[in-house]
Amino acid sequence: MAYGYIGSMRARPGRRDEVVAILLSGSDGLRAAGCRLYLVARAADDPDTIWVTEVWESRERHQESLRLPETRAAIERATPMLTGEFTGRELDVAGGLGVPDA
Amino acid sequence: MAYGYIGSMRARPGRRDEVVAILLSGSDGLRAAGCRLYLVARAADDPDTIWVTEVWESRERHQESLRLPETRAAIERATPMLTGEFTGRELDVAGGLGVPDA
Repeated sequence: MAYGYIGSMRARPGRRDEVVAILLSGSDGLRAAGCRLYLVARAADDPDTIWVTEVWESRERHQESLRLPETRAAIERATPMLTGEFTGRELDVAGGLGVPDA
Repeated sequence: MAYGYIGSMRARPGRRDEVVAILLSGSDGLRAAGCRLYLVARAADDPDTIWVTEVWESRERHQESLRLPETRAAIERATPMLTGEFTGRELDVAGGLGVPDA
């Protein structure tokens, strides 16, 4: 069963678009690291929250990706624009329409 | 910008797999209704919670789908197996790896 993750982060006022751009910039590297879905979205009901839904081949591949230089660089660029308020949930992906077979 | 939705629901003890099966059974109808992603997942840290992440062509298509006979039938079948505890967030989908262009 593929590993999934749903998380949210809060940008500082006016900085959300910049953080979204950083999150979207890493797609090629993510695929090579074992990511199959990396959905980035803005909360529709508030101006600062960003939601991500991720699907990875395994939990291990996800953990390993956090140690990649490009991931660390992206986190470093985004952190000053974030308040530090995060939520996160680990998931066992069952499947569904459009969900890649991890 | 595509419409997104992240939601959770809580199954009654021992009934989660049946609810997951119902949620997974509607894929063909969902695509015809304008859904581009319907990810179903089990919370990894508790035995009862189900998470869904959805991407739709528009908020209207999503609302319309809730009135479809097959959607109503699925909700009717699942409801007795649910506790009634739901969360839900509406999203503006920015994109990302594996995210279909809605």
